[in-house]
Amino acid sequence: MIDDIEKPSLRADLGTAIVGAIEEVLGPVKADLHAPVFAGNEWAYLKDCLDSTFVSSVGTYVDRFERELATFTGSAHAVAVVNGTAALHVALLLAGVERGDEVLVPALTFAATANAVSYCGAVPHFVDSSDDTLGVDPEALDSWLSFKTEQVRGLCVNRDTGRVIRAVVPMHTFGHPCDMGGLLRVARKHSLQIVEDAAESLGSYYHGRHTGTFGLIGTLSFNGNKTLTTGGGGAILTNDEQLARRAKFITTTAKRPHKWEYVHDEVGFNYRLPNLNAALGCAQLEQLPGFLKAKRALHEKYRQVFARLDGVELVHEPENCTSNYWLQALKLKEVDLQLRDSILEQTNAAGYMSRPVWKLMHGLQQFEACPRAPLDVAEKLEKTLINIPSGAGLV
Amino acid sequence: MIDDIEKPSLRADLGTAIVGAIEEVLGPVKADLHAPVFAGNEWAYLKDCLDSTFVSSVGTYVDRFERELATFTGSAHAVAVVNGTAALHVALLLAGVERGDEVLVPALTFAATANAVSYCGAVPHFVDSSDDTLGVDPEALDSWLSFKTEQVRGLCVNRDTGRVIRAVVPMHTFGHPCDMGGLLRVARKHSLQIVEDAAESLGSYYHGRHTGTFGLIGTLSFNGNKTLTTGGGGAILTNDEQLARRAKFITTTAKRPHKWEYVHDEVGFNYRLPNLNAALGCAQLEQLPGFLKAKRALHEKYRQVFARLDGVELVHEPENCTSNYWLQALKLKEVDLQLRDSILEQTNAAGYMSRPVWKLMHGLQQFEACPRAPLDVAEKLEKTLINIPSGAGLV
Repeated sequence: MIDDIEKPSLRADLGTAIVGAIEEVLGPVKADLHAPVFAGNEWAYLKDCLDSTFVSSVGTYVDRFERELATFTGSAHAVAVVNGTAALHVALLLAGVERGDEVLVPALTFAATANAVSYCGAVPHFVDSSDDTLGVDPEALDSWLSFKTEQVRGLCVNRDTGRVIRAVVPMHTFGHPCDMGGLLRVARKHSLQIVEDAAESLGSYYHGRHTGTFGLIGTLSFNGNKTLTTGGGGAILTNDEQLARRAKFITTTAKRPHKWEYVHDEVGFNYRLPNLNAALGCAQLEQLPGFLKAKRALHEKYRQVFARLDGVELVHEPENCTSNYWLQALKLKEVDLQLRDSILEQTNAAGYMSRPVWKLMHGLQQFEACPRAPLDVAEKLEKTLINIPSGAGLV
Repeated sequence: MIDDIEKPSLRADLGTAIVGAIEEVLGPVKADLHAPVFAGNEWAYLKDCLDSTFVSSVGTYVDRFERELATFTGSAHAVAVVNGTAALHVALLLAGVERGDEVLVPALTFAATANAVSYCGAVPHFVDSSDDTLGVDPEALDSWLSFKTEQVRGLCVNRDTGRVIRAVVPMHTFGHPCDMGGLLRVARKHSLQIVEDAAESLGSYYHGRHTGTFGLIGTLSFNGNKTLTTGGGGAILTNDEQLARRAKFITTTAKRPHKWEYVHDEVGFNYRLPNLNAALGCAQLEQLPGFLKAKRALHEKYRQVFARLDGVELVHEPENCTSNYWLQALKLKEVDLQLRDSILEQTNAAGYMSRPVWKLMHGLQQFEACPRAPLDVAEKLEKTLINIPSGAGLV
């Protein structure tokens, strides 16, 4: 009974307490969710790019950016492309996704993950997340596939739809690595390719290995709100040399090298990253270790202040993982949409930008008829997660 | 008999004469086919963009670039996108092109035109060009459609394949406007939408009206080799307000406006032009009148020197048209591939970059099974056209 009486006031107070906690960390400023920081050679490299006149599809910054991305991530190859969605589209094609296939995608993700599956003419099949990692839950996935699919000539076939399930796309939510060990086992068991959506996780490691380098192929994004930005941009990571060459080829209109002839021998894409954007990327990449350090320091500060609050916890990196803490996230201990929305109202009104996680994919009109596993965890996360200001410039 | 004896030496001499003519215009320099010129506010606007931190998907330069493009072209609306291929893809979708349709595309074009049709799941159907405009020949098109198609419930249906032919995509080759008057008549007669590929023709006018504004929808490209560059970029032009709104919506991931929710209600695309690239575009657009003047002056200089040569002519703008002279083109008077290739060798060896026109679309492996009209003119043009240095910085 006492609980019931106290709850309303507890709820009203939580928003105020959260605003106070953020203010203790950030001070009385306005803060975006993730503003980029340009404090290095951005200026010099952009000017160099203009002076060279090589701003477009060919140029030394593209090559350099690819080389340095490969070195940073420990991937044998990196291919720069125009954005993370384009990277996913091509990665799925290279993983063999065909029209009429299904691809396993977390319900808890940004629409680009599922859209890229649609671009291939394939159908997203939504699966649940783990409460620990916020990413695809390997155990739930294994149970679901064991129940719903059968192996037919080495392929995973959905018993209900008769379609081949070609791949699974783990997405490292807010930069927190999925349980890649578990996912590799499940993928092997059910004959699935892994295409990692590491759009949010540049600088995040699972057991010391960079996200995006576990599957056949992985993808990065350098959108303006990401840990590192090129304005718009993305990359494909792979350890397979032949796949890397194919990725470069079909993202550059599939043009065969020739002194002057324009010969293309398949339908290619104009997915090249312009040299201008790569120049920005090179300057940003130099600062990435500093950005990661700052974002981790911000997390520690938030941790201290939020440890004092009841009813909410700060999402921490999974065990044996290093997160880039792309987006800091609060998780409400109870499902209470009114509470969530009042916290969103209060924080935004105070000048601290906040937002809930994306609407789950199966809740979007264009995907509501797609196959899906039970999504209990994702549905709870959807109602309890709140992102708060996370930029590297905030500490 | 005398002709036959003289020909070999005439041929050997023509390459030398062409190199001499180009040298007379350009001087003893190395010249690319089309190097961009950054002589305005590029630097200032890029810096402003960095200083504002709005380099990505939102920013004032995108809005300004769209407004100024609309003003320049006289189009009611312009929507900036990530490149010309993306613009074409979306334009075709908005014109109602569906999986299994056919779309009429000139055989003489860059692969992007036909690729964009493939992205929609439709099939390119190749048609011939006019020797005067280098673009789709309305009369040949009318004859071909009258012979090959029938009207079924107000739709143009290919009698051989049974597929609906939804649209025609006139492309303004090298900046020379197609015969839009003729094409509008043929399109109306055969119930076709017109989607104009004006990738090469920013600053080109047919009867005083800007190319790209005649059809339902038109597209521009700002690749590094174009008259104006944004590094990589493109735009969709339309006079239809509802189409413009749809274009903006589906090129920005089809996200519905909301204070914080991420709701998408259809499969959208990440085809936004980054603000960084739009900033470059704004600076370039200020210089466009000067670029066009310089390119026209270059054409006049070439005209004088090439008027003296036999065996070759300089392609001139069609009657009642103003061409931007994006790429200057020589046309050999006779089909002689050996001669063409030796001219290409000689000009490139002299430091004057030259190239033949693109390989015709039906000659590319991925399109060789597509339907096609007789392509006699395009096949002759393929063997006789040579582009020579054309940048605005050359005069």
